[in-house]
Amino acid sequence: MESFREMSKEELQAQEVEVNKKYQEFKDLHLSLNMARGKPAPDQIDHANGMLETMTDYHAKDGLDVRNYGVLDGLPEMKEIFSDLLDIPAKNIIVGGNASLNLMFDQMMRLVVFGTAGEKPWGQLEKVKFLCPAPGYDRHFSVTETLGFELITVDMTSEGPDMDQVEKLVAEDESIKGIWCVPKYSNPQGICYSDETVDRLASMKTAAKDFRIFWDNAYGVHLIFEDVKVKNILDACKEAGNDNRAYYFFSTSKITFPGAGVSIIASSDDNIAEIKKVMTAQTIGYDKINQLRHVQFFKNADGVRKHMQILADCLKPKFETVLNTLEKELKGSGLITWENPKGGYFVSVDVLPGCAKRVVELAKEAGVTLTGAGATYPYKNDPKDSNIRLAPSYPTVEELQQAMDLFCVCVKKAGIEKLLEQA
Amino acid sequence: MESFREMSKEELQAQEVEVNKKYQEFKDLHLSLNMARGKPAPDQIDHANGMLETMTDYHAKDGLDVRNYGVLDGLPEMKEIFSDLLDIPAKNIIVGGNASLNLMFDQMMRLVVFGTAGEKPWGQLEKVKFLCPAPGYDRHFSVTETLGFELITVDMTSEGPDMDQVEKLVAEDESIKGIWCVPKYSNPQGICYSDETVDRLASMKTAAKDFRIFWDNAYGVHLIFEDVKVKNILDACKEAGNDNRAYYFFSTSKITFPGAGVSIIASSDDNIAEIKKVMTAQTIGYDKINQLRHVQFFKNADGVRKHMQILADCLKPKFETVLNTLEKELKGSGLITWENPKGGYFVSVDVLPGCAKRVVELAKEAGVTLTGAGATYPYKNDPKDSNIRLAPSYPTVEELQQAMDLFCVCVKKAGIEKLLEQA
Repeated sequence: MESFREMSKEELQAQEVEVNKKYQEFKDLHLSLNMARGKPAPDQIDHANGMLETMTDYHAKDGLDVRNYGVLDGLPEMKEIFSDLLDIPAKNIIVGGNASLNLMFDQMMRLVVFGTAGEKPWGQLEKVKFLCPAPGYDRHFSVTETLGFELITVDMTSEGPDMDQVEKLVAEDESIKGIWCVPKYSNPQGICYSDETVDRLASMKTAAKDFRIFWDNAYGVHLIFEDVKVKNILDACKEAGNDNRAYYFFSTSKITFPGAGVSIIASSDDNIAEIKKVMTAQTIGYDKINQLRHVQFFKNADGVRKHMQILADCLKPKFETVLNTLEKELKGSGLITWENPKGGYFVSVDVLPGCAKRVVELAKEAGVTLTGAGATYPYKNDPKDSNIRLAPSYPTVEELQQAMDLFCVCVKKAGIEKLLEQA
Repeated sequence: MESFREMSKEELQAQEVEVNKKYQEFKDLHLSLNMARGKPAPDQIDHANGMLETMTDYHAKDGLDVRNYGVLDGLPEMKEIFSDLLDIPAKNIIVGGNASLNLMFDQMMRLVVFGTAGEKPWGQLEKVKFLCPAPGYDRHFSVTETLGFELITVDMTSEGPDMDQVEKLVAEDESIKGIWCVPKYSNPQGICYSDETVDRLASMKTAAKDFRIFWDNAYGVHLIFEDVKVKNILDACKEAGNDNRAYYFFSTSKITFPGAGVSIIASSDDNIAEIKKVMTAQTIGYDKINQLRHVQFFKNADGVRKHMQILADCLKPKFETVLNTLEKELKGSGLITWENPKGGYFVSVDVLPGCAKRVVELAKEAGVTLTGAGATYPYKNDPKDSNIRLAPSYPTVEELQQAMDLFCVCVKKAGIEKLLEQA
C-alpha cells in the first residue's frame, strides 16, 4: 500500500471521497458493537459454568466448613494453586475477594493511612507522586488520581517501562513513592517485561525508602499465541536486597468470572504481616465458599493451565481478525502502527498524532464503541492524542470483522483529514 | 435460692467445698466446647444450602449476565429485597461484598482519607474520638482502635446508649466524630433501642459538623422470641434535618452464610454519591453472582422473613437452655444478673465485679471456651471485670446444657472466692 503521507493534496482529496463513501456505507448499517473494555464473551465464560453447579461438599481439606466464619488469608488449598501457578511461596500469599483491583486500592489506602516499614504514612506527606508507564490501565491511574497523588507518565518500550527514565526519576525525587506495572501481556500493548527490566526495577536506588512497585500480573497465565516467561518480581526484589519493595496482584477474573473470581495479594514476609495486622480489623475473612468452588473446579494449577488453553482457543480467532485486518487494510499506509501481542486482552494502536479522538468519535457515530481516546494515559490525557486500545474479546468474530473494517475506514478518514489540514 | 452475699464466712466456706467438688467433676469430663463467637451451627446453615445448588439462569431481571463485569452498586432486584426488608429506598442502598464489617472499615477509611461533606479528612486532625456504647461488639471497637482513634466508653441502658452521657459528650467536644450502634438485639445484651433513643441520636446537637453514626443493624431481622420494631435511623435523621448523619449497615451473614453473604451500606443521597465517587476507584463491582444466588433463593423480602422464622426455631431451644439454666442455678444467688434477649445471638451476663476473667479462666480450664472477658469493652478492658458474653448458637442443645451447667458452677466458684476475699 502506498503511504498516505507521501500523497499529494490532490491524491489525498481523491482518497477522501472514496473513504467518505465507505464510511457512509457503514453508517447505513446502523451497527451497535462494543470494543471498549476487556470483557470476556459469554461463550468464553461458559467454560467456567461447571463452577456454578451444585456443591456436594462444603469442607476444606482440613475439615473446615467453608460456609461459616473464619480464615482471614485464604484456604490453604486455594493458596497452593496460586503458589504453584505463579511460583510464589504459599505463606507469602493472601487470598482476597472478588477483584484484585479492590486489593490494590486497599493496599494504597493502607499506605496512605498507616504507611509501611515505619515510614511516615503517605497521607501525612505534602506531596506523593506515582509513576505511570503509559499507555497503561486506566483503572490503575484512577486509583492514584483519586488519592490525590501526582501522576507522572513514563514511556513504554518493547521491554517494559523506559528504565532510564524510571531510574533517573526515582533516584532524584523522594516524593515518588511507587510505580504501576502490568508485567505480562501489558494493558494495552501486550508487552512482556524483559528480565533486565524486572531486575532494574527490583534493584534501582530510590530516594524514597518506602518506594513500592504495584505489580499487577493481571494476565499472568493469559496466553493467546505464545506463553512468555516473565521474571518474578518478588524473587528479583529479594535477590536485590529490597525484599519489601513489591506488592504482587493476580486474580481469576479473566479465568473464571469477571467480578466473581478470586484475587490475591502476595509480598514479602514483612509486608504480609503488616497487611494482615490491618486486614484483621477490616474483615473476618473473604468468601471461602467461592474459593472452594475454584479449588473443586480446577483441582490444581494444571487445571488452571488447561483451562487457559481453552480460553486461548476462544480468543485466538478474535485477535487474528484484528491483526489480519490491520495488516490487510492499513499496512504501509503511514497512518498507524500497532503491537502484536502474544497474549492478554488488547491490541494497542497508534494513529497519527492528533487523530485518536477523531477516530474514536467517527467509530462511535457509526455504531462502534471503542475505549475512549486518552484513557490509556494519566488524567485520561494522551499528549499526542495518538493511542487507541482495541478490546477484541467481547464481540463475535463476525461482529469484530465488521467493527475492524469500520475502524480501518475511520483511521483512513481521520488520517486524511489531518494530512489535508497540514498540506 | 439464698443469696451468697448474705452468707457468713463459714457458710461460704462450706459452699466452696461443694462447688469445688462439682467443678472437679466437670474437669474430669474433659469437655471441649466453644461458646466464644456468634457462629451459627452447621444444621442452621444447612437451611441455606439451596443457594449452593446449580444455577440455571445467570441473568438479572434486566437481562444482564451476572457472570461478567459491571454494576457498581448492586443488582436492582437485590436492592429491592433489602429495601423492602429494611424500609430504605433502593436508591439509598449500595450492595457490597461478603461482609458488612468490610463496608464499615472502608467507610471509616474514606472518612480518614477523604473526609465528608467538605470537612477536613479525619486523618488530618490532631485527635479523633469515637463513642463506644459498652458492652458492645469487639470488632467495632477494633476498627476504630486500629485507626488510632480514642475510644470513649458510654454506658448502655435498657433503651440503648445512655443518651444523657452521649448528648453531653458530643455537644462539648468537636473531636468526637461518631458513635457505634447495634440498634436491635444488640451485641451482646440483646437490647433494642427505644424510639426516643433513636430520635435523640438523630437530633442531638454535635460540636463536630461531621459527626457520624455507624448504625450496624446486624440483627435487624434476627428475632428469636419476639420481633421488635426499632425506628429507622435514616428516617429519624431526615426528620431532624441531619440527613447525612448516619451510615446504615446490614448483611446476610447470619441469614445465609457467614463470610459468604451479601452486605449493604445505606445512607442519604449525598452520602451515597460521595461513597460511590471513591468506590468507583476501588472496584468495578462486587460479586453479582452471589447477589443473584440470594435473589433466586429468597425471591423477595417475605422469603427472607420466612427463612428467619426457620432460623429462630433453630436458635430458640438454645437460648432457652441458657436462660433456663441461669434461672434454675443462679436466680437469687446475688452472684449474677443477665438480660433476656428477644433476638440476636447473645446472652450478656454481669458477674460480681472482679470475677469475669476468673469465670472465663475456670471455664477454659474445664474445656469450655467463652468470649474473652473484657472483649465487650473498648481496649478489651472492662473496668469492672464483670461482663461476659455467652454465644449459644454453635453448640448443640446437649453440649450447651453441659457448658451452662459448668458455667454456673464457675460463676459460683469465682463468686465465693471473691466474697471470701472480702469477708
